[in-house]
Amino acid sequence: MILKLYDLAGAEIDRRFSPYCWRVRMAIAHKGLDVETIPWRFSDKDVLAPSGQGKVPVLVHGDNWIHESWDIAEYLENTFPDRPSLFGGPLGKSLSRLYANMGDVMAAQIVRMVLMDIYDRLDEKDKPYFRESREQRFGMSLEKVVEGREQRLEAFRESLLPLRMTLRKQRFFGGDSPLYADYALFSQFQWARCISPFALLADDDPIKEWRDRLLSAFGGLAKSAPAYD
Amino acid sequence: MILKLYDLAGAEIDRRFSPYCWRVRMAIAHKGLDVETIPWRFSDKDVLAPSGQGKVPVLVHGDNWIHESWDIAEYLENTFPDRPSLFGGPLGKSLSRLYANMGDVMAAQIVRMVLMDIYDRLDEKDKPYFRESREQRFGMSLEKVVEGREQRLEAFRESLLPLRMTLRKQRFFGGDSPLYADYALFSQFQWARCISPFALLADDDPIKEWRDRLLSAFGGLAKSAPAYD
Repeated sequence: MILKLYDLAGAEIDRRFSPYCWRVRMAIAHKGLDVETIPWRFSDKDVLAPSGQGKVPVLVHGDNWIHESWDIAEYLENTFPDRPSLFGGPLGKSLSRLYANMGDVMAAQIVRMVLMDIYDRLDEKDKPYFRESREQRFGMSLEKVVEGREQRLEAFRESLLPLRMTLRKQRFFGGDSPLYADYALFSQFQWARCISPFALLADDDPIKEWRDRLLSAFGGLAKSAPAYD
Repeated sequence: MILKLYDLAGAEIDRRFSPYCWRVRMAIAHKGLDVETIPWRFSDKDVLAPSGQGKVPVLVHGDNWIHESWDIAEYLENTFPDRPSLFGGPLGKSLSRLYANMGDVMAAQIVRMVLMDIYDRLDEKDKPYFRESREQRFGMSLEKVVEGREQRLEAFRESLLPLRMTLRKQRFFGGDSPLYADYALFSQFQWARCISPFALLADDDPIKEWRDRLLSAFGGLAKSAPAYD
C-alpha cells in the first residue's frame, strides 16, 4: 500500500518548499518507504477535505488521512515499528519534541528573511491568498517584513549556538546517524535553500556541514530537489 | 562506597549555587544514590588536584575523580546501569547533548543578570578572585555587566519559547518523568534562585510550573536549599 503525500509546490511543479513536508519526506525515507508526492498549492484546499483541515503535509495511507508533521511521524513510527526508529524509543520521542518546537521557532525567524523570495516563486493563483494572509499575520507588507534581513541574519546565526556546540561533538543530533530530531531542524534549512538564494549559514559553520550530510542522505533525496545552493 | 561531590558554596556554607553542581546533584538523586557534598570555594583549587583541574563539580567515587557535569552523568549512567536511566538509552544520550548545550547558553544569559548577586554572596576570600576573573572575561566591571538587566529579561524570556511550547505538551522534557535533559536546564534556574532574588520567570509561565515540579522532586531536594523564592 503506497504512501501518498500532499506536498507544497511553487510555480514550478518540482519546487517543493514546505519545511513541514520536508520533515515528512525525510521521515519516510528514514523508514525506507516509498512515497508518491502530489504537488499541492495553497488554493487547493478542497482536495484535503478528507483530512479535516486545509494545510499540508497530509499523508494518505489507505483510508487514513493524517496531517501535522509530528502526528505523521508518530503514525509512521507506530505503523512501521520494525523499520528504523525515528525517535529512539518512547523517551527519545519525548526528548524529540523540543527539537520540533525549536524548528518551528526557527521557521518564524527564517520566514522574515525569505518571505519575498517565497512570494516570487509561487504559482500565480496562490499569490493573492499568500500576500493577503501573510500581510495580515505580520501587520505589514511582504516587502516590509524582509527589510533589514542582512542585519537580522547575524542574530539568527547567533541563536543557533547550542546547535553548533552540539554538532562540534557529534555528527547528528541523534548521534552517529540522524533521527527525527535532525529532520525537524534540517527541514528549515532545506525549505530556505529550496525557495531562496539568501544564504542562512556561513560556509565554515558546523551546522552547514551537518546540513550537507543530510542533503546527501537517502541517496541525495534533499540534494536532488531544485534549490539555490 | 559513598559518592562525594565538591560543591560550590557561598559565604553561607549551605548556599550551593553552581548550576553544574546542581546538574550532578539531581543526576545522583535520579539514580537513587546517596552523596556527601563537600562545600568548596573558588580559592580551594588545591583540594581538587587529583581531578587534574581546578573547577567543580568534581565527583569522587573510590579512587575515581571525575569532573565536568556531562562526564559525571555518563559515569553515573555507566557505573549504575541498573538504576533509572538518565538518558533513556544511547540515542537518548545523543539527543540529550543539545539540552546540556542549551543550558550552557542560558547560563551565559543569566550570569549577565545575576553577577552582582553572586558576588555579594561569596565568601570574602573568594571575592577578589571572582571580581578579577569575571571583569577580565566580560571586559567591564561587575556592576556594569548587570546594568539594564530588566530590559534583557524580556529577551531572555522570549528566547525560552521552544521550552515553553514543549512544556505545554508534556510534563517534562523526558516525558512523564524527568531525565538528565531536564536537569541540564533546571540547574540554571536553580542556580539563579539560590543566588539571586531577581525573578527570571513569570508566575504564569509553564516553565515555572515545570521548575516547581523539579523543585519538589526527590523529596524536595532542590526546594530545601537556601534560595530566594
